[in-house]
Amino acid sequence: MPFKLKIIGSGSAIPTLTRGVTSQYVNFNERHILIDCGEGTQMQLRRYKVKMQRLKIILISHLHGDHYLGLVGLLSSLSILGRTQLLTIYCPAELEELLQVQFRLAGMKFSYPIEFIHLKEGKPEVIFEDNILQITAFPVRHRIPTWGFRFDEREKELNIDPAAVKQFSMTHDEIKKAKKGEDIVRETSYLRNADITLPKQKLISYAYSSDTSYFEQMADYVQGVDLLYHEATFTEKQKDRADKTMHSTAREAATVAKKAKVGQLLLGHFSARFKNTDELLEEASQIFEQVVCVQDGDEFDL
Amino acid sequence: MPFKLKIIGSGSAIPTLTRGVTSQYVNFNERHILIDCGEGTQMQLRRYKVKMQRLKIILISHLHGDHYLGLVGLLSSLSILGRTQLLTIYCPAELEELLQVQFRLAGMKFSYPIEFIHLKEGKPEVIFEDNILQITAFPVRHRIPTWGFRFDEREKELNIDPAAVKQFSMTHDEIKKAKKGEDIVRETSYLRNADITLPKQKLISYAYSSDTSYFEQMADYVQGVDLLYHEATFTEKQKDRADKTMHSTAREAATVAKKAKVGQLLLGHFSARFKNTDELLEEASQIFEQVVCVQDGDEFDL
Repeated sequence: MPFKLKIIGSGSAIPTLTRGVTSQYVNFNERHILIDCGEGTQMQLRRYKVKMQRLKIILISHLHGDHYLGLVGLLSSLSILGRTQLLTIYCPAELEELLQVQFRLAGMKFSYPIEFIHLKEGKPEVIFEDNILQITAFPVRHRIPTWGFRFDEREKELNIDPAAVKQFSMTHDEIKKAKKGEDIVRETSYLRNADITLPKQKLISYAYSSDTSYFEQMADYVQGVDLLYHEATFTEKQKDRADKTMHSTAREAATVAKKAKVGQLLLGHFSARFKNTDELLEEASQIFEQVVCVQDGDEFDL
Repeated sequence: MPFKLKIIGSGSAIPTLTRGVTSQYVNFNERHILIDCGEGTQMQLRRYKVKMQRLKIILISHLHGDHYLGLVGLLSSLSILGRTQLLTIYCPAELEELLQVQFRLAGMKFSYPIEFIHLKEGKPEVIFEDNILQITAFPVRHRIPTWGFRFDEREKELNIDPAAVKQFSMTHDEIKKAKKGEDIVRETSYLRNADITLPKQKLISYAYSSDTSYFEQMADYVQGVDLLYHEATFTEKQKDRADKTMHSTAREAATVAKKAKVGQLLLGHFSARFKNTDELLEEASQIFEQVVCVQDGDEFDL
């Protein structure tokens, strides 16, 4: 599978014995990424058999403890276990400072380099790009500066129709041009790109809302993704509490999914008050049918 | 039982699925105390059914992550769950500063007051004292400033022999004096304290070494305790590594126990390299027989 999402922790605020606090592991075509790293994430990674040393990128959405307190422990363990490879952390600027203090107080020396890249407030920004994957950080609305993340597969070269290559005796140069989407202009003939290439493959996309209250632009930020993970800390019954703490209800999460025309909606970050997710699922599915309430350890492929 | 020790985490450095990192819960005659608070401690407290809100005192021995990274999460959960009672944290001075930064960045407001008391470097110091319990912090030898803790039951009033009260028709005032250990001088007679009181009850004591390399004075600091928890990260086979990282071997821990004439020795903080504790137990028991290698969840009473 070119994309795999593993839910490492799906609870909010207080970790329980059945739900860890927020963390997700994304394998996007062998780009190994951790999104958020609440307390206990390194134990959860072991539990769910994620190979920690493969991680190249860690994204931290905001500085509430349930999203980052597991980071120092994880970084330390990677070092004790002998990592040498660069690790890049995208995070609010203050986190770097905080970690440097903790490293200094503990006299920590790392076996590998860590690069910090600070998230910028204001508007969506592409923070990572290679030939396969683009990651965009977008601002959401929470009590402190907070970012969501969107993962988009990058435009791929077209596949050439082998029958056309044979039929039109296409040259190496012509094939190269056709892969880039160009038509082929010959002295005495003209090959339309659509006639010599196979239909475009769909590009994969995923978005993570982090913690946020409902706001209109969210649907633009996550427009058309195959898979959307949106927090649903509460139901409409706790709407007052949701507004006060700047979290979303299941209905609001589903409204975003519907407006954004996403493929599937995953709900998580449930308040510990819910003994099960029936109520949350029912509320969301009245607005948007393709919805799942996640559990720790769940996997989703694209 | 006047004293109960519960092992919350007994591993070192890297938490595994079978051993959490360091934390212990002490119930000393209804004084509820947490010693150290590594990552995941709040989950472990739930697992081992310790009532978190009962905690009045938290002792943090040093600022290596495996001894304190669970603290912010625990403090935050206590607040979310509505605590109102004062919590006192005895810790290295830098920890207060670090926590205040974390609280500020997360916009945390607590439902209860937290008092920080800074541990002083240099020599043993009584940090807590009431009518039942005395806690002494003592400096140990590690890569960064680190303290061990000793718990001593305070001298109790003597119990009066009911037969003597009857036989000598003792007055209320006389009983009060006798309880304090005084002899009773009457106009025509003299009651020796030993003849009117019951034999002294033994006072309970416990000590926690925290992380330390072997040093001579340790045995003085923990002299005569009923129960000693001493770290044994390594065996003599890894003596080089023990020296380099300033940890103890099982043999060294047992040597302290023997010199200090303790009642029982508990070993913990084992390196994750040990698949079981056979080797550590064997090495220690050659020096000191009353020794146990602890597991998470173990309880010890006095």
